[in-house]
Amino acid sequence: MLISNDNFLTSEGDLVELISPSRKVYIFQLATSGQLQTHRGIINHNELIGQPWGSEVFSHTGSPFFLLQPTLADILQELPRCTQIMYPKDIGFILITMGIGPGSRVIEAGTGSGGFTTGLAWSVGSSGCITTYEIRPDVINLARKNVERVGLGKRVVFKVKDIIDGFDENHVDAIFLDLPNAYDYTKQVRQSLKPGGYFGCILPTVNQVTRLLSALHTNNFRVVDVCEILLRYYKPNQDRLRPTDRMVAHTGYLIFGRRIINSKTD
Amino acid sequence: MLISNDNFLTSEGDLVELISPSRKVYIFQLATSGQLQTHRGIINHNELIGQPWGSEVFSHTGSPFFLLQPTLADILQELPRCTQIMYPKDIGFILITMGIGPGSRVIEAGTGSGGFTTGLAWSVGSSGCITTYEIRPDVINLARKNVERVGLGKRVVFKVKDIIDGFDENHVDAIFLDLPNAYDYTKQVRQSLKPGGYFGCILPTVNQVTRLLSALHTNNFRVVDVCEILLRYYKPNQDRLRPTDRMVAHTGYLIFGRRIINSKTD
Amino acid sequence: MLISNDNFLTSEGDLVELISPSRKVYIFQLATSGQLQTHRGIINHNELIGQPWGSEVFSHTGSPFFLLQPTLADILQELPRCTQIMYPKDIGFILITMGIGPGSRVIEAGTGSGGFTTGLAWSVGSSGCITTYEIRPDVINLARKNVERVGLGKRVVFKVKDIIDGFDENHVDAIFLDLPNAYDYTKQVRQSLKPGGYFGCILPTVNQVTRLLSALHTNNFRVVDVCEILLRYYKPNQDRLRPTDRMVAHTGYLIFGRRIINSKTD
Amino acid sequence: MLISNDNFLTSEGDLVELISPSRKVYIFQLATSGQLQTHRGIINHNELIGQPWGSEVFSHTGSPFFLLQPTLADILQELPRCTQIMYPKDIGFILITMGIGPGSRVIEAGTGSGGFTTGLAWSVGSSGCITTYEIRPDVINLARKNVERVGLGKRVVFKVKDIIDGFDENHVDAIFLDLPNAYDYTKQVRQSLKPGGYFGCILPTVNQVTRLLSALHTNNFRVVDVCEILLRYYKPNQDRLRPTDRMVAHTGYLIFGRRIINSKTD
Repeated sequence: MLISNDNFLTSEGDLVELISPSRKVYIFQLATSGQLQTHRGIINHNELIGQPWGSEVFSHTGSPFFLLQPTLADILQELPRCTQIMYPKDIGFILITMGIGPGSRVIEAGTGSGGFTTGLAWSVGSSGCITTYEIRPDVINLARKNVERVGLGKRVVFKVKDIIDGFDENHVDAIFLDLPNAYDYTKQVRQSLKPGGYFGCILPTVNQVTRLLSALHTNNFRVVDVCEILLRYYKPNQDRLRPTDRMVAHTGYLIFGRRIINSKTD
Repeated sequence: MLISNDNFLTSEGDLVELISPSRKVYIFQLATSGQLQTHRGIINHNELIGQPWGSEVFSHTGSPFFLLQPTLADILQELPRCTQIMYPKDIGFILITMGIGPGSRVIEAGTGSGGFTTGLAWSVGSSGCITTYEIRPDVINLARKNVERVGLGKRVVFKVKDIIDGFDENHVDAIFLDLPNAYDYTKQVRQSLKPGGYFGCILPTVNQVTRLLSALHTNNFRVVDVCEILLRYYKPNQDRLRPTDRMVAHTGYLIFGRRIINSKTD
Repeated sequence: MLISNDNFLTSEGDLVELISPSRKVYIFQLATSGQLQTHRGIINHNELIGQPWGSEVFSHTGSPFFLLQPTLADILQELPRCTQIMYPKDIGFILITMGIGPGSRVIEAGTGSGGFTTGLAWSVGSSGCITTYEIRPDVINLARKNVERVGLGKRVVFKVKDIIDGFDENHVDAIFLDLPNAYDYTKQVRQSLKPGGYFGCILPTVNQVTRLLSALHTNNFRVVDVCEILLRYYKPNQDRLRPTDRMVAHTGYLIFGRRIINSKTD
Repeated sequence: MLISNDNFLTSEGDLVELISPSRKVYIFQLATSGQLQTHRGIINHNELIGQPWGSEVFSHTGSPFFLLQPTLADILQELPRCTQIMYPKDIGFILITMGIGPGSRVIEAGTGSGGFTTGLAWSVGSSGCITTYEIRPDVINLARKNVERVGLGKRVVFKVKDIIDGFDENHVDAIFLDLPNAYDYTKQVRQSLKPGGYFGCILPTVNQVTRLLSALHTNNFRVVDVCEILLRYYKPNQDRLRPTDRMVAHTGYLIFGRRIINSKTD
C-alpha cells in the first residue's frame, strides 16, 4: 500500500524500492523466492525481508543500495507504461488547483497507463471515488494492474467506453481529460460536472490549447487558466551547487476552468 | 469545509468565493447579516444564501461575480498572512514527492501564517495528523484561525516551542521545515523521523541550501534532491494565446532527503 | 557615440549615464548649462564635465551616483519610446543567430521606436548598412532621433513606406520583421533576401507564430527555428544570493529561417 | 570569412555549411579534391563549387542537403573543441550588455577552444582588437586554428601566460574571464580595465558566484549584475507547435560589473 507503514521492518508482500548510488530506482514486491538482477549484481528478496526500512543493503558483488518504502512520486516515475505518462510536477499542481483530496469524486479520461489514475486514487483516500474512461481495452488492463499493485484498486472504477456519448456519473466534483481531442468533449464534461465544479486538461501543443479555449467558452466554462510548470533539478553538491545540464522542457500545457450555470439553460 | 459539498445551494456558514471578471477573488463565510464591499459595489450575503453554486451574481451596481466553492489553492492564495506563505506550485509538488496523503503523520516547523499547515491538514484527511511548531505566539494564533476557518482544526496540533530541543513526536512519516536556519535542526529531524522517512525544506537563498546540504550529509540523509519549480501563466485568449508579461521568478529552492539508518549508530 | 571612448574625462556633448545606488539610470547629453533633476536631488552638468569616467559624483543633497559611458544595452533600456521595444536578451541572440555583424547589409520593418534599429546600426559598424521601413511617420521620427542621438544616423536609411509592394533593396544579408502580421510579407522578404540569407521575426502570440510558419513553408524558407529566451536576474548579494522575486515572463517568440532557392523558380 | 559574401556562387576556399533534413550540420572549407562523408552518403566538393548559395544539393545516395554560408552561431555550435564552449545565447547577451562591438578593445582569459574568442573577434570588426590569455599551450593552438579558419586571425593576439601577474594591456574597454577561479583575478582586471569599463564572467556553480561577488566588492566594482539565460526551442510545426521535450537547463551564471574609480586610491 502507498499508505503510511507502521512496521519498522519489511515483510513479504511489501512494495519496496531500492535506490543505487547513481540513483537508479528499482520498485518491486517482496516474494520469498524473488530475485532482483541489476547491472550492479544480484539481490535475493530473502535478504531484504525483515530488514529495517531505510537500511543500506548490498548486492552479491557488494554494491550498496538503499531499501526504502516508495512514495507516490517514486512509483509514478517507474510505472510500467504503454503511453506517455504524467509527471509528479504536473500531478501535484493539478490536485491542489482542482481541489482534489480526501473524499473527492472525480472522473478521468483517458486512463492511459494509469499514472494519474494512481495519483487520483491515492489523494482521495478511502472515502473518495475515481471513475476512469478509456477506449483501448489493452491499455486499461495495464492501468488496472498498475493501480492494483499499489493497493488502490478499490477506489477506482475502470470503464472501457467512448465518452462521446457522455459519462455515466453526475455531479462529480472534478473532471480531468488527458485526451488529444479534449475539445470534442466539453459538452459531456459540462453534463456530468457539478455546478461550480472544476475541469482540467493537459495538452502538448498550442494548437490544441486554442481549440480547447474556444470549446470551453462555448460551453460556459469560466475562470479559465492556462499554465505550464517547469521543474529544474540541481546537482546537490554543497561545494559545487548548480543546475543539472539538461532538463525536461515540456510535458504539456495545463488548462483549467469552472462550470458556471446559466439560469436560462441549466 | 474544504471537503466536497453535496448540496447544490449555498447555506449560511458556507465558505464561499466570489470571482470578478478581472479575477479579483473574495473568500468569506456566509452570514445572514453579512455584507461584502468591493470597488465594484456591495453584495449582501442574504442575496447569496440559497443560490446554486456556480451561479453568476451581481453587486448593487450591477457588476457580475461568479459564486463558487473555494478550493485549497484559492484559499492559500487569499490567506490572511503575517509572513511569506508557500505557493500552490510548491505545495503540490512537496506533497507528491514526500508521499504525504490520506493517513500520513507529519511534523512541520515553522508554522508561519499556516498556509502549508492548511495544505498538509487537507491532504492527510481525517485519518492523518499534523503537528506544527512555531516560536512566535502571535504568528501561531493567526495560523490556528486560518486552519480552523476551513474546518481542518481537528487534524492539527499547534505547539509554541523551540525545536532546538527536539520534537515531541517519534517515527513520523515526514518532516518539513520552513525555517531560515533549517540546517541547525537536521539532527532533531533525524531523531523524530521514521527510518526511510522523508525530510523536506524550502529555502530562498543558495547560501542556505549549501549549508543544509552539508548538515544533511553529516546526519546521514541520502537520496538528496534540490530543485525549483517555475509556474508560467498564459493569457487564455484563443486568438491571442501568449504567456503573461511577468511571472514569479522565485519562491524558494526545495530540498528533499531520506533518513538512512546505520546499523552501528541507529 | 556608442563607440569606445579614448578619453578618460567627460566632455561637453558626451552621452553620459548616471546610476543611483538603487539602480535608477539617467542617460543624457552633457551641455554646459544643463541640469538633471532627480528625486534624489539636482546635478548640474557643469559639475560632471571634465570628470573621469567611472567616478562617483553627488547631487546637491549629497546622494551618490556613478558617472559612466552608457553601453548599447543601457541605451536600449532607457530609450524614449512610443511602442513596445525589443529587449537586449532578444537582440543579442538575434544578431548572433542571423550572423549580423560588421559589414552586414540588413533590412528591418517596422522601425517602431528604433530600439532594434539602434542595435543593428551599432553591430554592423561603419562598413554596414541598415534600411528600416515604417508606415507611421510620427513613429519613424522618434526612431530617427533615437538613432541620431547615439551617433549612428549615417548607417541607417529610414523609409516611410508600406512593404506590401516590396522592399527597394536586393540581395541583402538579412531581413528582420517586427510586425504583427509578418506572415503577410514573406514573399516580399524572399524577393529582397540573398539566396541562403537569414530571415528573422519576433511575434508575441502562438497564433501569429503558426501562421508565419505556414507562410514561410509556402515561400520556400527552410532550416526554420522557433524559440524563446528567458532572462532571470539574481540579487547580487554574496551572503544571500537568490533570484529576484519577479521576472519578465515573455517578450516574444523568435522565428528564424533561411531562403532556399529552387532551380525551377528562382 | 564570416563577413557578408557578395558572390552568389560558392568558390574553392569558401567555408560552407551543409544541413541535412534532420538538421545535422557539416561545416568545412571547399577544396577541389575534397570529399564529405556522411551517414546519408558521400558528397564531392567539386559538385558544390560553383553552386548558388541557398541551393539544395544531393549526396551520391540521393539524400538532400541545403548549401549555406555558415553564420557565427552555426560555427560556434560546430566548433572543434577540447573544452566546454560558450553558447550563442550567452555570447549574444554578453556582447550587448558589455557594449562590445565594432572598434572595441577587449581582453579575454582563458581562451579555451576559442569559441568566445571567435565571437569577440567577429563582433569588434577590423578596427577592434582582442587579446586572449591561456596557460595551456595545446589548448591555445586549437583556439588559434579555430579563429584562423574563419578568417579572423588578424584581430586576435594569443598569449600563453598566467594572468596572476597581470595583463600586458591597459585601459581596455572590457575584460571577460572564463576561468573557474575568476575571483582570484579581480585586482588584475581592475588594473587593466579603463575606468568605467565593463567586467564580465561566466561561472557554473553558485559557490563560485558568491566568491566572485565578494572579490568584486573588495576591488571596487559596482553596478554588479548576476543573471542566467534560458533558451527554449519549439518544434516548428504549424499544426502541432510545442516546445521541444528537453532543453539545456544550465550553461553558467553570467556576472557583470563596472570599474568605479576612487579618487583616493586610483
